[in-house]
Amino acid sequence: MNRPVYAVLGAGHGGKAMAADLAGRGFAVNLFNRSPERIAEIALRKEIELEHEDGTLQRCPLKSVTCNIEEALADADVVMVVMPASGHRTIAELCAPYLRDDQIVVLNPGRTGGALEFRRILDTRGTSHHTTVAEAGTFIFASRSTGPAQARIFRRKNAIPLAALPAIRTGHVLEAVCEAYPQFIPAPDVLHTSLDNMGAVFHPALTLLNVGWIESTKGDFQFYVDGVTPSTAHVLEVLDRERVTVAAALGVRARSAMEWLKDAYSAEGDTLYEAIQANPGYQGITAPRTLRHRYIFEDVPFSLVPLASLGSHFGVSAWATDAMIRLACVVHGTNYYERGRTVEHMGLKGLRVSEIRKYVQLGEIHPVY
Amino acid sequence: MNRPVYAVLGAGHGGKAMAADLAGRGFAVNLFNRSPERIAEIALRKEIELEHEDGTLQRCPLKSVTCNIEEALADADVVMVVMPASGHRTIAELCAPYLRDDQIVVLNPGRTGGALEFRRILDTRGTSHHTTVAEAGTFIFASRSTGPAQARIFRRKNAIPLAALPAIRTGHVLEAVCEAYPQFIPAPDVLHTSLDNMGAVFHPALTLLNVGWIESTKGDFQFYVDGVTPSTAHVLEVLDRERVTVAAALGVRARSAMEWLKDAYSAEGDTLYEAIQANPGYQGITAPRTLRHRYIFEDVPFSLVPLASLGSHFGVSAWATDAMIRLACVVHGTNYYERGRTVEHMGLKGLRVSEIRKYVQLGEIHPVY
Repeated sequence: MNRPVYAVLGAGHGGKAMAADLAGRGFAVNLFNRSPERIAEIALRKEIELEHEDGTLQRCPLKSVTCNIEEALADADVVMVVMPASGHRTIAELCAPYLRDDQIVVLNPGRTGGALEFRRILDTRGTSHHTTVAEAGTFIFASRSTGPAQARIFRRKNAIPLAALPAIRTGHVLEAVCEAYPQFIPAPDVLHTSLDNMGAVFHPALTLLNVGWIESTKGDFQFYVDGVTPSTAHVLEVLDRERVTVAAALGVRARSAMEWLKDAYSAEGDTLYEAIQANPGYQGITAPRTLRHRYIFEDVPFSLVPLASLGSHFGVSAWATDAMIRLACVVHGTNYYERGRTVEHMGLKGLRVSEIRKYVQLGEIHPVY
Repeated sequence: MNRPVYAVLGAGHGGKAMAADLAGRGFAVNLFNRSPERIAEIALRKEIELEHEDGTLQRCPLKSVTCNIEEALADADVVMVVMPASGHRTIAELCAPYLRDDQIVVLNPGRTGGALEFRRILDTRGTSHHTTVAEAGTFIFASRSTGPAQARIFRRKNAIPLAALPAIRTGHVLEAVCEAYPQFIPAPDVLHTSLDNMGAVFHPALTLLNVGWIESTKGDFQFYVDGVTPSTAHVLEVLDRERVTVAAALGVRARSAMEWLKDAYSAEGDTLYEAIQANPGYQGITAPRTLRHRYIFEDVPFSLVPLASLGSHFGVSAWATDAMIRLACVVHGTNYYERGRTVEHMGLKGLRVSEIRKYVQLGEIHPVY
């Protein structure tokens, strides 16, 4: 493959950072956003100003800036979807008519079941089975939007697991993106990227167990350093055990939060509380300023609901997860079970575990919708 | 009736304040506590030093101080139970063999279903049906224990609803206690005292939605003024609506939290958030210092569990209440559904609403155990 042309779908802080970073390194980038307002200034300038980790500024010229999905996809080799998981369904519907055999879609990240749901939508819309859908375990940057046509990258993460659906195409995806993103590493399959979703464990619970503090102070405390206490950490442990148990029911050995803290940050302890407090990476991360935050409206329906749905489908009690979802429903006055990603949305309803594993590995068993 | 002799069961802050206050006003008082340690100093002195609202100190001599229940009850006319609801079962078992026809037991307070459960235990132990059991809606003092043989009363509440089981005996109870407690007023029946339990709505939710803040600062914030925010108040509204709906299923028109704030504190607003913030009575009330607090270990099993159990028995969804109970179970690693007060414990299992209403009013339908 020649140097791939990238389409970046979504011009939030992540999408702008990713588009600018690619463009700044000489890749051709089409930046797409559904609502024209958010890209008006970028469309005018045809570039994004990127502030790097070291504070240097770089003007990053884009190939095109558009709210026309057909145009964004036309010459793209790799389609990077960079938006909250709540946008995945809509963007899959939008893309379906235009995606071609040779194109690769990567969800950055998929949360839990993103690639599965995206694939299911493409299948129901008759998109070619040869179009490859993949998902990353997390977003590769810590970044922020610093102006209408500005973005800032604080940190680039290492060793981001990525899996294609089916997993036999993961190598093909890594090859296509390796020049731009050597930090992607292969995950065994999308069940692993989906079930190793640590945000599912940390984000909603820490937000919901600190509702009063967040609202009363507009998030003026350290989310992990202050907000994680012995009791909140105990709830995280229970949620984590449920996630790992749901994964086990699917034959997946998910990484525990303790293992992840040790691997990613060398943070250890006898309890999750100690391990979290031993993680210098959490220093300085402040709490959400409001309850209208993606830690609830993204992580509950697209991380916790799929876990609870898989648990209930395969007979694993996810009691604490369920309590968190309910509480989020009450706090936001929203039925997240209805809006969230269930086994039906992921195309797994009625499948046995062996069929699911064959499907994610080989793509051979196509779920019946 | 001559001036009644009182037995006060329980020598926590409430029991000591009540015993001292009665004794200080010339009533004969037997103070009972199960564990001798807590009353050792009082037994030695045979008196409690009471600090009144105005700061004056009074030495209040007791008739007896004992950990022998038979002795405590022997000459008592009125038995005031002043302990967390978690102690009601045990104390009912202890009292059952010694209670006589002419004695009156008052739970201060019963939380939800206290008198019903106490009565059921007496019935199963063969205690006379003529022994009267009653419950107060709340405890009559705001008080604190200030030393081993010391107590302090901050405030005496007005207009405390009280109901006997059956309600036709409420007048008899009020007559017996009116010299000591003119502030007791008749409630229609124990369903009303039990279902108007505002602590069920406020205590567990505000604690659980502020877990991180409480533990991180050892409760160094104002529980209502700071801890009640638009979102936490929204959760309280949903819980309150569930409580009122469960009550409606039992034919009881429970007072809403908004109505209660208006009646008790003249605090009003368009939303519960506004009404709570408009209540000067909440100024200065600090949060629990730890999660090991009766707001969870008493209010969850003996306020929320009975509400959820009644709801599920009579087909009322108590979804948010259930989420709170679950979360408390996870936080404390305790199955509060198992430990709590259910329709079985209250002796209401299998009864229809008309039978329950007849039972609480007239005592005529005796539940079958």
